[in-house]
Amino acid sequence: MPILEILDYAGVAVFAATGALSASRKQLDIIGYLFLASVTGIGGGTMRDVVLGATPVFWVRNPAYLIVCASAGLLMFLTAHRFESRYRMLVWLDAVGLSAYCVMGAAKGLAATGSPTVAVVTGMLTATFGGILRDLLAGEPSVLLRPEIYVTAALVGASVFVCATIVGMPLAATSALGVVTAFAVRGGALRYGWTLPTGKAGPGRDPSDVM
Amino acid sequence: MPILEILDYAGVAVFAATGALSASRKQLDIIGYLFLASVTGIGGGTMRDVVLGATPVFWVRNPAYLIVCASAGLLMFLTAHRFESRYRMLVWLDAVGLSAYCVMGAAKGLAATGSPTVAVVTGMLTATFGGILRDLLAGEPSVLLRPEIYVTAALVGASVFVCATIVGMPLAATSALGVVTAFAVRGGALRYGWTLPTGKAGPGRDPSDVM
Amino acid sequence: MPILEILDYAGVAVFAATGALSASRKQLDIIGYLFLASVTGIGGGTMRDVVLGATPVFWVRNPAYLIVCASAGLLMFLTAHRFESRYRMLVWLDAVGLSAYCVMGAAKGLAATGSPTVAVVTGMLTATFGGILRDLLAGEPSVLLRPEIYVTAALVGASVFVCATIVGMPLAATSALGVVTAFAVRGGALRYGWTLPTGKAGPGRDPSDVM
Repeated sequence: MPILEILDYAGVAVFAATGALSASRKQLDIIGYLFLASVTGIGGGTMRDVVLGATPVFWVRNPAYLIVCASAGLLMFLTAHRFESRYRMLVWLDAVGLSAYCVMGAAKGLAATGSPTVAVVTGMLTATFGGILRDLLAGEPSVLLRPEIYVTAALVGASVFVCATIVGMPLAATSALGVVTAFAVRGGALRYGWTLPTGKAGPGRDPSDVM
Repeated sequence: MPILEILDYAGVAVFAATGALSASRKQLDIIGYLFLASVTGIGGGTMRDVVLGATPVFWVRNPAYLIVCASAGLLMFLTAHRFESRYRMLVWLDAVGLSAYCVMGAAKGLAATGSPTVAVVTGMLTATFGGILRDLLAGEPSVLLRPEIYVTAALVGASVFVCATIVGMPLAATSALGVVTAFAVRGGALRYGWTLPTGKAGPGRDPSDVM
Repeated sequence: MPILEILDYAGVAVFAATGALSASRKQLDIIGYLFLASVTGIGGGTMRDVVLGATPVFWVRNPAYLIVCASAGLLMFLTAHRFESRYRMLVWLDAVGLSAYCVMGAAKGLAATGSPTVAVVTGMLTATFGGILRDLLAGEPSVLLRPEIYVTAALVGASVFVCATIVGMPLAATSALGVVTAFAVRGGALRYGWTLPTGKAGPGRDPSDVM
């Protein structure tokens, strides 16, 4: 499925770049760039393949993905210091990767199980796990805990892709629709600070609750 | 095995609720609740299935588990702010999940490998991994590092279940025995602050040791 | 392959000891020692087996590895407080484990896929993942973010092993060569503070970049 392969490479490359940007923010050495780039680039897809039982995972079956990660990491090592704000670039690239990967993950989940529920969840997992791993390893505040919409964008993109597929739209259309929707949601959240209502603050003010 | 299925659903639902309570403590949005609920609810069992090679993992084979997590997350989103202490509720629900899951994990490990050692370890892993993941992702101090007995309760519950099974007790009895023992140990630790002796503090007072 | 088995047990035992040393630094109880010892000892190999699809993972197929972890953890529980600097001991044992495991992981990756690229990556992953997991769970600053060469040593050791294997050297020689090279690189980094050039600091001084 060429279009899905393109999305896969795009997701890997762009997430790898965000991992390298985290390495840059932490002033790591070249290997640190390559390591964080690889973990971020292939983390989500690895998680997806593992839970689906599609092992050996994709980058073991096709090492080209590792070359993509290494190249993205190297490119960032050489250029990252030039960017005005590596953080802003990181979150926007991350948004692109999230959009490509939520569709890719949903497609693989749907093909493997035929269950729309599982497809939406694998899409969301694939799209968010790499970034979560990157933040954990780089010791950055997790993207999960930031106020703006993040997981939601992946969830919406994956759901749109799955619904469009169920109603029988062609793959190219469903993929494009899913990617664009996810990016629109995440991009809007970044640009206009969109948020969802948070849980009401409880009365709980006892010491243990502060912990 | 109905009784094990009940334990599995109970473990998933209760752990999912603890994940949602963490989301509540972090004032996340509804999707944050659902995400942390799902990761916490299915994390331990996913780990168990992956190391046992029982893939696709349980929630991919049976998406009902995802519905359970989402429902628990939604329920908490609507009610958590009402609780006097969400933290106290979190640790007690976590104790219930731990008790159900250590038996469930041990049973699956024993069925898959026949090795009591592996069964005890998978039981412990299944019971503790979801909570560890929850704390890591929510940026809370890991339950692992708290003084009170935690992993120990899962270890004891799984061991009791395995031994009772080896001596030939019926499944219903071994399961009940394991769950009750684990809960008694963890509950006692929470209620009476039971602890195990810690390693002696070393002389090591050199700067690097402080790190 | 006896020599690889020896490396595997050595890697597991030594990494397990480092996990127990972390537990000691955190003043955990005996179960905390055993838990961190096991996670650190088998974490890297588990990751390797999972991505290669070699499940059930090695310690499920052969529980002896769990006994090794438990013994190393117990030994440390009884003796760790005697050491002048548990931190220094931790990093040196970690260097030994890293050297043994990068060769072991590369060998398994090469045997499973025949791809040198994959072999180098699985070698690096196997050697570093246990330590990364240990630091994450113990809440210590990740070894990844420390200035000294770490991942690089595993990468070099795995690469040397793979190249030597490709040119047809006997297994005993390639293994020894890989282990010695990795240890020389990591040891030199620890002893003489070797580092690689880090990415240039960017101009990016906007508030979000500080985050």
